[in-house]
Amino acid sequence: ETCKNGIHESLVDLSSFQLEKVLHNNTNRKTVCLKGKFASKHGEALVLLEKTAFAEENLKQDSDYFTKSSALEKVFHNDIYGNYNYFPKVNLNTIKATIIHPATEQHFLKYSPQKCRVVDETPEVYEKIVLPHLSSEQFNLKWLYNILEHKSEVERIIFEDPDVENGFILLPDLKWNGEVDTLYLLGIVHKRDIKSLRDLTEKHLPLLKNIQKKGIESIKSKYGLDGSQLRIYLHYQPSFYHLHVHFTYIQHEAPGILAERAHLLSNVISNIELLPNYYQKITLPFVVRENDGLFKKLQENSVN
Amino acid sequence: ETCKNGIHESLVDLSSFQLEKVLHNNTNRKTVCLKGKFASKHGEALVLLEKTAFAEENLKQDSDYFTKSSALEKVFHNDIYGNYNYFPKVNLNTIKATIIHPATEQHFLKYSPQKCRVVDETPEVYEKIVLPHLSSEQFNLKWLYNILEHKSEVERIIFEDPDVENGFILLPDLKWNGEVDTLYLLGIVHKRDIKSLRDLTEKHLPLLKNIQKKGIESIKSKYGLDGSQLRIYLHYQPSFYHLHVHFTYIQHEAPGILAERAHLLSNVISNIELLPNYYQKITLPFVVRENDGLFKKLQENSVN
Repeated sequence: ETCKNGIHESLVDLSSFQLEKVLHNNTNRKTVCLKGKFASKHGEALVLLEKTAFAEENLKQDSDYFTKSSALEKVFHNDIYGNYNYFPKVNLNTIKATIIHPATEQHFLKYSPQKCRVVDETPEVYEKIVLPHLSSEQFNLKWLYNILEHKSEVERIIFEDPDVENGFILLPDLKWNGEVDTLYLLGIVHKRDIKSLRDLTEKHLPLLKNIQKKGIESIKSKYGLDGSQLRIYLHYQPSFYHLHVHFTYIQHEAPGILAERAHLLSNVISNIELLPNYYQKITLPFVVRENDGLFKKLQENSVN
Repeated sequence: ETCKNGIHESLVDLSSFQLEKVLHNNTNRKTVCLKGKFASKHGEALVLLEKTAFAEENLKQDSDYFTKSSALEKVFHNDIYGNYNYFPKVNLNTIKATIIHPATEQHFLKYSPQKCRVVDETPEVYEKIVLPHLSSEQFNLKWLYNILEHKSEVERIIFEDPDVENGFILLPDLKWNGEVDTLYLLGIVHKRDIKSLRDLTEKHLPLLKNIQKKGIESIKSKYGLDGSQLRIYLHYQPSFYHLHVHFTYIQHEAPGILAERAHLLSNVISNIELLPNYYQKITLPFVVRENDGLFKKLQENSVN
């Protein structure tokens, strides 16, 4: 029902989009995040635009980049240095658009730039403050169960191990446009009771090693990259609380790979092998936005 | 003369460009660097292309972004999330082109990146391969001892604790320009026998906690940032083998803060408190360049 009336059934341009606010303009990554509405549709919309990286398969001599159909316009030159505006054929210069509609306040918060704080989460802080907060604010995981149940995105699945204990589905991350240069896949476990790193113990070692081994093998056979060319990691805090593992090409500076958030899978496995209850004992730093309800709760309890 | 015969006098497209090699493709910043020649011109050329950031002046309701002249093409959708390719009018989607001709070898070197690999360093690999390699390749630390002995950069010191066991010097990193937005300081310990994370044990806890506490206090009093606004971390592998701690502003995406290299100090302390010989037992992933001598040694020993 939502799907049938949804904007994604019929959208062919943004002429019905009523821009309300530019939430965020990342001039480094060339992304922009817009808030607005679609004419005659209920609810607010979030439009995320991202200039795409150059695709190496198009950087070949016979490409339209190197024909008269892609124009150069000189800005200035000085000696051997020339500065131009370049207008490649429109199909070479895609923008990736992600449109969320209807979008909730949480979506807008997620995409608004925020001042952040680092919090050192002890096991006690996790139990008393963070866990109860998560349980009350959990995102809707319908989209994820759709994937696990083969109700959505079936044709996007790169690999599946259907085992209920150790199985997982590997598929492209929403942020990925499909070029190996920016490879970004997600391994989503079939088990539904592992929220995050904090829940991992020695009994999950077979699951973690299975994801590591089969994820690497699938990527090697499909995309030709070795395991040593992959950054394989988990987020803490994750953006949704169902265990998932990120696979990105090591040469690609994907979002979410900073030390305060990303934990390499090989290190996670090694930690648990060293100490089976490592993730129940350790202090885990994480980053939280100043205007996040969780940060207020932490402040009230004098954590940070 | 060069100017009159130079390509910058007459170039209107890249149809005469003969592509030889893609030197560099930065998928994060969406830049690419090409090496080649221009037909019937002497000398080699370097072409640097960069997708432009979204200009806020174009992100307005009456812009062609939001008319039928900018098309959307659906890739797929799932529930409220839709993924599209977006083709804005060509003038909204400029690429910045910098063309250097004739370019020298130095230009090409400057724009060539290196391929990297992730290596899982077990304690055995560290002992047998990495440590002997470091010892043979150790960088000259004279510049660092000059700082510790007050022979250089004395006026740059922000804070010093002169204690021989637990003391350190805090000073601006060379990459920092002095703006708080991009704050980057370095804490260098007085002790000279700690090469890296791998050497840390429980006996270094007072040193690590001292750096954490006094580093935060100094930055708070001089720059007004709280401890929770700082990313405090060590590198593995570090760029020089004398223990030092990085302090950067959490809002600043400083170089060297990716998960495969940066280890947050609070987590380092917590690891050692949990297990005194954690850093002698754990597998530590690190990144190495393919053309680094260390990578060749690791390959010869079938590591990675």
